[in-house]
Amino acid sequence: MALLSPPAVYAEANLMPLPSSVRFGTGSLPVTQKFSVGFDGFREKRLDDAVTRMVRRLERKTGLVIGNGRAAALQSPQAADSTLVIHCTRASKPVQSVTEDESYRLTVTPDRATLTAPNPLGVLHGLETVLQLVDIDAGGFAIPAVTIDDHPRFAWRGTLIDVSRHFMPLETMRRNLDGMAVVKMNVLHWHLSDDQGFRVESRVLPKLQQDGSDGRSYTQEQIREILAYARERGIRVVPEFDVPGHTSSWLVAYPKLATDPSDLKIGRNFGVFDPCMDPSNEFVYAFLDQFIGEMARLFPDEYFHIGGDEVNGKQWSASKRIQAFEKAHKMPSGKEGNVAIHRYFNERLLAILKKHGKKMEGWDEILNPDLPKDIAIQSWRGQKSLAEAARQGFTGILSSGYYLDHMDKAAAHYAVDPLAKECADLTAEQKKVVLGGESCMWGEYVSPENIDGRIWPRNAAIAERFWSPAAVSDPNGMYQRMERVSRELEYAGVLHRVNYRLMCERLAGNGPVEPVRTLADVAEAGSLGVRARSHKYATDEPLNRLPDTVLPESDVARYFAALVERVKDPGAAAQIRHWLVLWRDNEAKLQPVIAQSALLAGTAPASQTLKDVARIGIEALDAIEAGRRMDAKPAAAIKARLAAAARPVSEVRIGVVPAIQALAQMASQ
Amino acid sequence: MALLSPPAVYAEANLMPLPSSVRFGTGSLPVTQKFSVGFDGFREKRLDDAVTRMVRRLERKTGLVIGNGRAAALQSPQAADSTLVIHCTRASKPVQSVTEDESYRLTVTPDRATLTAPNPLGVLHGLETVLQLVDIDAGGFAIPAVTIDDHPRFAWRGTLIDVSRHFMPLETMRRNLDGMAVVKMNVLHWHLSDDQGFRVESRVLPKLQQDGSDGRSYTQEQIREILAYARERGIRVVPEFDVPGHTSSWLVAYPKLATDPSDLKIGRNFGVFDPCMDPSNEFVYAFLDQFIGEMARLFPDEYFHIGGDEVNGKQWSASKRIQAFEKAHKMPSGKEGNVAIHRYFNERLLAILKKHGKKMEGWDEILNPDLPKDIAIQSWRGQKSLAEAARQGFTGILSSGYYLDHMDKAAAHYAVDPLAKECADLTAEQKKVVLGGESCMWGEYVSPENIDGRIWPRNAAIAERFWSPAAVSDPNGMYQRMERVSRELEYAGVLHRVNYRLMCERLAGNGPVEPVRTLADVAEAGSLGVRARSHKYATDEPLNRLPDTVLPESDVARYFAALVERVKDPGAAAQIRHWLVLWRDNEAKLQPVIAQSALLAGTAPASQTLKDVARIGIEALDAIEAGRRMDAKPAAAIKARLAAAARPVSEVRIGVVPAIQALAQMASQ
Repeated sequence: MALLSPPAVYAEANLMPLPSSVRFGTGSLPVTQKFSVGFDGFREKRLDDAVTRMVRRLERKTGLVIGNGRAAALQSPQAADSTLVIHCTRASKPVQSVTEDESYRLTVTPDRATLTAPNPLGVLHGLETVLQLVDIDAGGFAIPAVTIDDHPRFAWRGTLIDVSRHFMPLETMRRNLDGMAVVKMNVLHWHLSDDQGFRVESRVLPKLQQDGSDGRSYTQEQIREILAYARERGIRVVPEFDVPGHTSSWLVAYPKLATDPSDLKIGRNFGVFDPCMDPSNEFVYAFLDQFIGEMARLFPDEYFHIGGDEVNGKQWSASKRIQAFEKAHKMPSGKEGNVAIHRYFNERLLAILKKHGKKMEGWDEILNPDLPKDIAIQSWRGQKSLAEAARQGFTGILSSGYYLDHMDKAAAHYAVDPLAKECADLTAEQKKVVLGGESCMWGEYVSPENIDGRIWPRNAAIAERFWSPAAVSDPNGMYQRMERVSRELEYAGVLHRVNYRLMCERLAGNGPVEPVRTLADVAEAGSLGVRARSHKYATDEPLNRLPDTVLPESDVARYFAALVERVKDPGAAAQIRHWLVLWRDNEAKLQPVIAQSALLAGTAPASQTLKDVARIGIEALDAIEAGRRMDAKPAAAIKARLAAAARPVSEVRIGVVPAIQALAQMASQ
Repeated sequence: MALLSPPAVYAEANLMPLPSSVRFGTGSLPVTQKFSVGFDGFREKRLDDAVTRMVRRLERKTGLVIGNGRAAALQSPQAADSTLVIHCTRASKPVQSVTEDESYRLTVTPDRATLTAPNPLGVLHGLETVLQLVDIDAGGFAIPAVTIDDHPRFAWRGTLIDVSRHFMPLETMRRNLDGMAVVKMNVLHWHLSDDQGFRVESRVLPKLQQDGSDGRSYTQEQIREILAYARERGIRVVPEFDVPGHTSSWLVAYPKLATDPSDLKIGRNFGVFDPCMDPSNEFVYAFLDQFIGEMARLFPDEYFHIGGDEVNGKQWSASKRIQAFEKAHKMPSGKEGNVAIHRYFNERLLAILKKHGKKMEGWDEILNPDLPKDIAIQSWRGQKSLAEAARQGFTGILSSGYYLDHMDKAAAHYAVDPLAKECADLTAEQKKVVLGGESCMWGEYVSPENIDGRIWPRNAAIAERFWSPAAVSDPNGMYQRMERVSRELEYAGVLHRVNYRLMCERLAGNGPVEPVRTLADVAEAGSLGVRARSHKYATDEPLNRLPDTVLPESDVARYFAALVERVKDPGAAAQIRHWLVLWRDNEAKLQPVIAQSALLAGTAPASQTLKDVARIGIEALDAIEAGRRMDAKPAAAIKARLAAAARPVSEVRIGVVPAIQALAQMASQ
């Protein structure tokens, strides 16, 4: 028996997120079609359903036909006879709270697995652990003997999904909730309104969805369905209705809310818009009281996110009415006046939220020492904001560093810790109010089709950051486990891999898919900024081209970079050459495909860049293999060409450029 | 404008099944996110839903976000403003009948598409045609200008799905109904009971599902859901309850039905079993009257399939009671007595079916000149049976030649014509009673996971045989179009390609998937016979090994065979060598993967065979390229080795053996 603490645990525990403690035993518990689950202690329909889902996933993973799914769990006459016995002590709260115990203990011996948890939340997490532990070897499927004591490092582990910029159908929400459950995330932050669309049915103020959604909104019934789906999986849902900015879609429906009611329209592009609610107008507060009252009943979570970000203040500065209001209320003028009136707005909003029994949550901008300490600050600015808030006693969560639309590498997100940087200097007491973090899937450049690949599997690395001990930080181990969890996500129904393949095939049109795939496999999606700089995207513009198809991080590029590190090994060198030749020769194969598929228009520069860098790579490899050093002049020219190739092209990055830069560097030394 | 009649139409019409008449025009109708559908004429909820589904599929195919799906169709204020205008004359029958008109006419100009049909069945078929016609070129997505007049050659175009040997969940049934709709099939023959399980809830005789199904049966509510799902797609559902043989699952529940009530049990293996109902027992008829009465109300189709096949008669011959009954009824004795008492049984059954308003359908064995001519014979024996039946005036459909579990090539099924062979000699009048055919997906070796890949895309070739003019028969054109329709099937939700990939990954366990995939891509699933000869499979045995994973027909093998035909072309020869080297070297890569995955146990012989034949291929290619002729003795040895390699190994066929045989043949000439 060996007590493994991170990072030694990496090699053996195929789990993501890694548990707080893993102690391997000897032998393993076979998993066959006789696998069964029994309860011994508290039991509820939610747990029965979770076991049914778990058995179905186990079938998908193993290809075994296990009992009758639900029946396998429920017909087990005695818990003691079951392969997996679940001891749950008591019910969890009727509305899941951020303070609830999510711990569990899992003990697996060659005879039996036992999952113990104080309440169903721990059971749900433990069932995911059991599924991930199932592995195959020459003897068949089995779960290794192990004792796991596990609990999250942070209580708030969320994913924001923006359904305003692009509407996401229910099945997309369900798939992503399933994915979140796989990696033990527990908050869906649902960004439900913005300039580009208001996405919830209001019965008291129905113009919101009628005039502000282009017919794309959820009914209250559908919202309740998703809330129930999330609760089934141990996930809270925090709704965000961003005010007073980001509200074009509201203002179209109710122009009386607007600071400037002229020229109101639903946002058809992206960016920060001027239209804004008028904080000097009592109608606004009466309206928000009605609206929040209704939404507070619909969404049971204790937190209610009011956004509060990116008010550019142009309309406030231009409004005589607001200037007069500021003067009358002894507020400063100019930019400071905008800050002051925004504070005033938030204080009025806070009173409304209190009346309806909610805690306020908002972005950095709402921070104001006069607000009560139980409001929560979500920081898109970084640990500095968070530390400031924490020192004042404000609850906070970190999102800076976890923006999935920035298309960073999983390792980059993984390296961001809510309690690092400025937060590292907080006292232990101050650190307690840093509740965790949230990844953000902003919706400008995502469709129901490509959103899975934008969120997954990278979000698993972020989930691990929020759940596992801080010492769990080796990116190599993370990538290994991320590849495995990527399959688990697929068994759970996430479409990140299926849709990537289908989208590549669509790009190819009537041509062969291989050259498209060869390019796509090394291309990486351009960030929000890259997309915005390419042209002004419209909200209804199809997201079906190369930059929409390719994933944020190329696995091939990562494998290739690892090969380059071993270039002195002749085997590795041969593989490197194989790849480089493939990429060099791909251009000629891809050209005719590009010529006959409109979706590939604009792809030629990316293809040409790949060819160019592949040629450079071959030159460098030739030099390295021949043991000769590149002359300074061509080496400098090559360096410049590679630097140019490292820049975005065709709205993507050629992911193998850094490794080829490394190769060229070696060749010139 | 060119009137294209088959086979000239192949190159231009990407449709499967090919329509009766296709006349291409000039230009094309662009398909953008503004695509809309309007009705002009008869309209019903079924058609609205069909349009919504069609728009969703179009979105999936193109990546465009089109209106609001349903809204796109229904909000169109004037049919005249729509991209696609649907003219439907009248409703179809409340219960879809085999005699209904399924024709439609589709006219596409650069301005508009018009779909005209006498009733909704034609509209449903026409919408599938529209979807298939959508194509991409350098200008974007578009539908070519075309006039299509289309109607089916045969009125009965079915697929049998056996859910007794392995139970298929509702979503599996739904997926396959979606697939059938894509290729205009119109009958689901639902094989609902057999020795291994009784799959429908009976409320009057509930022991049938309680004792006969191992807990795996459909509720009546679920049956109705599937019936509605099928009707929505223009598909009839003919239930089959196979009697008097193939009834172990019934007899377990109601032993009084049995000829020999000793040792009754649900079938746990496969084959023809002895247990059989007792035709001499009045209880049997009272029971069937009750049962058929209930099922006749549940299933609205005019036909009711009573099976009637494979009664081996052992128990009848051994039963003194039955011998006495035969004597008393002046029936012959011995084998002829069995035929006679089976006839007697069928006549009694026919009276019961008539009482409950149903036409009888059964397998060849029920054929009896004394039966009324409106019964339908489903022939598993071939066109000879069918022709005999037709000469006697019996309605018939062909299934011989369309058994999907035989794992034949699509081209082999495609070459079978219900009106060929003995049926070719029928008079025009006699031919009219040959209504069409059904493919059969018997369930011994299929799971909910691999059934999609067993049925699709081969079933599309069979669907074309039933729909398109007899002259449409070129296998090359068929394969080209089958590859395209395979994507359409995927857009419609069929999982033949997704599950193949997932199963290959599962086989690989923790090893690399590439060598598994290299073998799997050239391996072809062994037939029912191959599987049965390997060992006695149990009904609950996992179907997650190589023979379960690989598809019935290898695309790679087909491409390779085409290359071999062009071996004199140096480019083709280089590609041939590339493949052969890959296969030869795969063995070394696969061995360690086999060693660590229990699912690959037994795969080594297949891998070894692939290596061996690849080596032979390389030898042959060397000789061909060098322009030398292999000596007779080694050529003979090679011939023998290849003949051995052509036999099933590891329950699969190595699909590239025939092409390597051709190569070796060329090298020795």
